[in-house]
Amino acid sequence: MTPEPLAISFDDVAAASERIAGRIHRTPVLRSRLLDEVAGRELFLKCENLQRGGSFKVRGATNRLLALSDDERQRGVVAFSSGNHAQAVALASRSLGVDAIIAMPLDAPRSKVDATVGYGARIVTYDRHREDREEVARAYVEREGRALVPPYDNPFVMAGQGTVGLELLAEVPELDAIVTPVGGGGLLAGVATAASGAAPGVRVFGAEPAAANDTALSLEAGERVTIAPPDTIADGARPQSPGHLTFPIVRDRSAGVVLVPDEELVTAMRLVLTRAKLLVEPTGALGLAAALFGRLPDDARRVGVVLSGGNLDLDFLITLSGAERA
Amino acid sequence: MTPEPLAISFDDVAAASERIAGRIHRTPVLRSRLLDEVAGRELFLKCENLQRGGSFKVRGATNRLLALSDDERQRGVVAFSSGNHAQAVALASRSLGVDAIIAMPLDAPRSKVDATVGYGARIVTYDRHREDREEVARAYVEREGRALVPPYDNPFVMAGQGTVGLELLAEVPELDAIVTPVGGGGLLAGVATAASGAAPGVRVFGAEPAAANDTALSLEAGERVTIAPPDTIADGARPQSPGHLTFPIVRDRSAGVVLVPDEELVTAMRLVLTRAKLLVEPTGALGLAAALFGRLPDDARRVGVVLSGGNLDLDFLITLSGAERA
Repeated sequence: MTPEPLAISFDDVAAASERIAGRIHRTPVLRSRLLDEVAGRELFLKCENLQRGGSFKVRGATNRLLALSDDERQRGVVAFSSGNHAQAVALASRSLGVDAIIAMPLDAPRSKVDATVGYGARIVTYDRHREDREEVARAYVEREGRALVPPYDNPFVMAGQGTVGLELLAEVPELDAIVTPVGGGGLLAGVATAASGAAPGVRVFGAEPAAANDTALSLEAGERVTIAPPDTIADGARPQSPGHLTFPIVRDRSAGVVLVPDEELVTAMRLVLTRAKLLVEPTGALGLAAALFGRLPDDARRVGVVLSGGNLDLDFLITLSGAERA
Repeated sequence: MTPEPLAISFDDVAAASERIAGRIHRTPVLRSRLLDEVAGRELFLKCENLQRGGSFKVRGATNRLLALSDDERQRGVVAFSSGNHAQAVALASRSLGVDAIIAMPLDAPRSKVDATVGYGARIVTYDRHREDREEVARAYVEREGRALVPPYDNPFVMAGQGTVGLELLAEVPELDAIVTPVGGGGLLAGVATAASGAAPGVRVFGAEPAAANDTALSLEAGERVTIAPPDTIADGARPQSPGHLTFPIVRDRSAGVVLVPDEELVTAMRLVLTRAKLLVEPTGALGLAAALFGRLPDDARRVGVVLSGGNLDLDFLITLSGAERA
């Protein structure tokens, strides 16, 4: 039996980069000597927290939408997400004049719902204890002929996310490694694919919450493993298994996945805020925490760190101030 | 009687720019559509909060130190500051291998003292209720032949701060205005001088705390006015009068000073943190608050906003979370 080919190639990422240019921010790569000192390595912070919509997700969503036919664009899109993907699809849709429906759980944080509505999308709520979000979304595909924009398991979405890696590699020569957060695996798959073509010597690591280690377990098992709903502050990394398209790419093209405990995430968020003056959300700080606290190989001296997002409820600032320990 | 010539010219700023290139970060200019919507104008955020040492102050300090003779460098420098200037002089001194003594008040925030010591400077504390900080510093000038690095009232310091304006004007074409915070006036004087040569049509405004309106009062009076110790959260804008070198430049080259109440500062800090993901300290948000909340002329459509610093005690995050209102 021939194995299925991987869902995207380097050329798909390069094509995505051309397609979405001018519609997304080319985010800055920032340095902080103070963080370098903590890490004991040179860190190059790719600031997707400064991206439109506050995360890298707008890259994949924009690439997916631009790949639709005129006819499909007319019929609109549908997505399911309680987080950054919702805002990204809403934002990309508004920019391109496409009608968007986003299925969000009834108990989604008010700030995320508001942001998504603010970008002009219609929200359809569902009860996540009784309804399946994919089914809710698929009803709109079948009834209205809308195109689904999945959060990670789609070639255009993965290729779009990979443009983060292309930009980082173009800007910083001679990196030893790149580290990205891992949720469903779209960002890691995309960036690993970018590196495989643009800089095959650069190892691309994923960083996963220790409590949401589905990708690490899957890599160990050699096949996709499903875990129980994980308890972690990294809300963007809560998928219970890697995607069926992302996993083979992560397995074949990444250098593996390292695990980060939630306490190190909070410390990393506090450090990047106070030292580098950047607000990064828990999921967005996974790669940074891995780089800061010795989770990467010692010989990775020059490390590109994808700060993948910065959308955070204000309440979390109290945690970062350390006041909760008083 | 011929009036005294102004202390710096455009050429001094241009020379500073060449002199300090490579020793400071060329900080990014970032955009945020969400902030643009609040302001009702296009804002171009010059991120000196991402500068080395966390504020623009390292520009002036570095320019001053590089202008010293070899002999002067040997003898070292001395500065007085409880804030960003202390860190900047310490950082610039370490970079250039110059010995630095910083006079800081006994009750300076622990974090500022630690940062200054962390950059390798020696601290000399004084009691700000009983001792004059300039006298404390001048003793080291007389006793050890050290060069004083004043926080603003010095041509090299002002010219160094002006490089912020040069970079902003080089990067963003067709600005209508620039707005900077005003404390002692070094940044405003420098940036106004930069604009006077590089883009004479661009109006440069200062933004001052409503409770620390010494520069606004001085402009009204046509001469330097001294106010009582002001009560404002903008700790970098607490000088009680404009400098004797900065004031004539502010008067002749800036478009004037607007006033910002502390409540608007807090709102601006919260907005730039949650929307643009940038940590900005109270003083650093003065210009932003002015641009966001209607303190600038309506015809200033494209506004360069200098976010001058990001050094903040963690406790302040609680204020930003809004928890203090609960």
